[in-house]
Amino acid sequence: MSASGLRRSVVLKSRPRGEPVAEDFGIVEDAIPKAGPGEVVTRTLFLSIDPYMRGRLREEQTYAVAIQIGEVMTGETVGQVVASADPAFVPGDIVVGARGWQTHSVTPGERLVKIPKGGAPLSTYLGVLGMPGATAYAGVTEICKPKAGETFVVSAASGAVGSVAGQIAKRAGARVVGIAGGADKCLWVQDSLGFDDCVDHRSLDLGRELRSACPNGIDCYFENVGGVVQAAVFDQLNAFARVAMCGMVSQYNEHTFPAGPNLGFVVGKRVHIQGFIVSDRPERMTEWRSLAAPWVADGSLKYREDVIDGLENAPDALTGILSGRNFGKLLVRVSAE
Amino acid sequence: MSASGLRRSVVLKSRPRGEPVAEDFGIVEDAIPKAGPGEVVTRTLFLSIDPYMRGRLREEQTYAVAIQIGEVMTGETVGQVVASADPAFVPGDIVVGARGWQTHSVTPGERLVKIPKGGAPLSTYLGVLGMPGATAYAGVTEICKPKAGETFVVSAASGAVGSVAGQIAKRAGARVVGIAGGADKCLWVQDSLGFDDCVDHRSLDLGRELRSACPNGIDCYFENVGGVVQAAVFDQLNAFARVAMCGMVSQYNEHTFPAGPNLGFVVGKRVHIQGFIVSDRPERMTEWRSLAAPWVADGSLKYREDVIDGLENAPDALTGILSGRNFGKLLVRVSAE
Repeated sequence: MSASGLRRSVVLKSRPRGEPVAEDFGIVEDAIPKAGPGEVVTRTLFLSIDPYMRGRLREEQTYAVAIQIGEVMTGETVGQVVASADPAFVPGDIVVGARGWQTHSVTPGERLVKIPKGGAPLSTYLGVLGMPGATAYAGVTEICKPKAGETFVVSAASGAVGSVAGQIAKRAGARVVGIAGGADKCLWVQDSLGFDDCVDHRSLDLGRELRSACPNGIDCYFENVGGVVQAAVFDQLNAFARVAMCGMVSQYNEHTFPAGPNLGFVVGKRVHIQGFIVSDRPERMTEWRSLAAPWVADGSLKYREDVIDGLENAPDALTGILSGRNFGKLLVRVSAE
Repeated sequence: MSASGLRRSVVLKSRPRGEPVAEDFGIVEDAIPKAGPGEVVTRTLFLSIDPYMRGRLREEQTYAVAIQIGEVMTGETVGQVVASADPAFVPGDIVVGARGWQTHSVTPGERLVKIPKGGAPLSTYLGVLGMPGATAYAGVTEICKPKAGETFVVSAASGAVGSVAGQIAKRAGARVVGIAGGADKCLWVQDSLGFDDCVDHRSLDLGRELRSACPNGIDCYFENVGGVVQAAVFDQLNAFARVAMCGMVSQYNEHTFPAGPNLGFVVGKRVHIQGFIVSDRPERMTEWRSLAAPWVADGSLKYREDVIDGLENAPDALTGILSGRNFGKLLVRVSAE
């Protein structure tokens, strides 16, 4: 608990045009809240920074309600209980489910899930064992459904979602090809994650590089970025390909979206393109945690984290993730464990 | 059988650039073929003209092999057996399954299906009870899956596929809105097919007309045309919408395809876009015929045919269907029953 008894929160000051800048956000202070009936107050340890947050800054509503000017930014956290009016939680418990770019949150107890102590690092509950991991799991198993010997491509392959998606597809026996930004990321994707190949989307001839990495065409695509990467992949889809549309981060800062692909190929190739949002089926999150926790424990499911210190740096972290500046799951350490 | 003992066939003379013209085709004559072992010779009664045929004229392969210069044009027919080396067929039998823009075809017997005499008009086996009807059935029941109260939109609504698709969706209890070209077609779609509304795609403000016809947004879209119609519909899709991608006839004459929709909405709205080709699952055709034959017999499943006389008019008929000149299922009567 803050010595001063004050809570700090990052609020939206103005809607960014293009790339979010520091001036679009402000920090406000108020008293650390009390727990009302059934509520739990948590001290934020880690805050997750994810590309979807850019959508919440837009005037128009996407799939979730936009954040209004003056409102606290939204985001998943791992926190420690400091006060509880829910008998299921006691001070000291570590939980996920509290939200907000703030040092303390107050949350109905029924939305919180306790994290076992002594298990996986707490930060993983926001990444490989959290929403990004479950997103990868849902997209790969419900939409892409890679079969042994098929070619599976994932963009933003070194990111929180892409890195897990590729590893799940690899376990299914697919040839897994990542697309990532820069040599360092590609090297990690191949050497550490064990993907069969990785293509740098900044290469001069992305289509040719991709063709060379996918000599049998592409059967599954896990889409995180859109734009020229999407165009290059779509050109090389095989008949009966499955495309899991998870995100299109390359355009999140755009005011108006560029034209997309002509969809004639979807007919002739019987392509299946499916958008999804993991929160539509919360049970998948629980399922994924049970499945993946042993893989994290035995080291067979790899992950990488990019941790920024200090709540005040969250806005800059968001700007960074939208341009791919981070390397691995991006987190803000809001306070020490 | 032709008195002269000659067969006439329409062959491809040159690949059309843009709209096919008469000079792209030629008529060749040869002897009426004999039936080899297991084969059946048929005299063509009706030839089906369908938009997909334009794709076969392209240099590059789509989902089927391109027709080569000098080759006979492909197409579904209803024919009468004139000679048979397959014990399952005797002269006089009426069959579907023989292919080709020609007065006589020779076909392995196993590819033919006998049509019961005295039932539905023979021409319907190329339309409402044939490939177009089965296509509508597959797209609506496997992809669109309209539920009671949902809004179902189909383009080319007065065509062979669209007219059936809408009627199937109507039976499922959906609000069904057609999109068609011109007041005559729209009137027929509403008055005869019983769709809830029909929008003329030539209207000045297609988006507004469509919004007015679909006050609760669009849950299902059966896509036959692409282009500006697709853009208008995609703008109004609801969350969890299903799009059956059957064809995009508006661009079949284009040498290079125009850009398409930005696919960001697919993520946020969890849209399902699925291409399909009915011939991938021939069992659906059989299923559809059993299901729909009683509806045709009792008059509850409506259809309209646009019959052109004479094989030599088939090329012009194809040109016409690509610009929507036909009104209803387009057929060429090649010879009298």
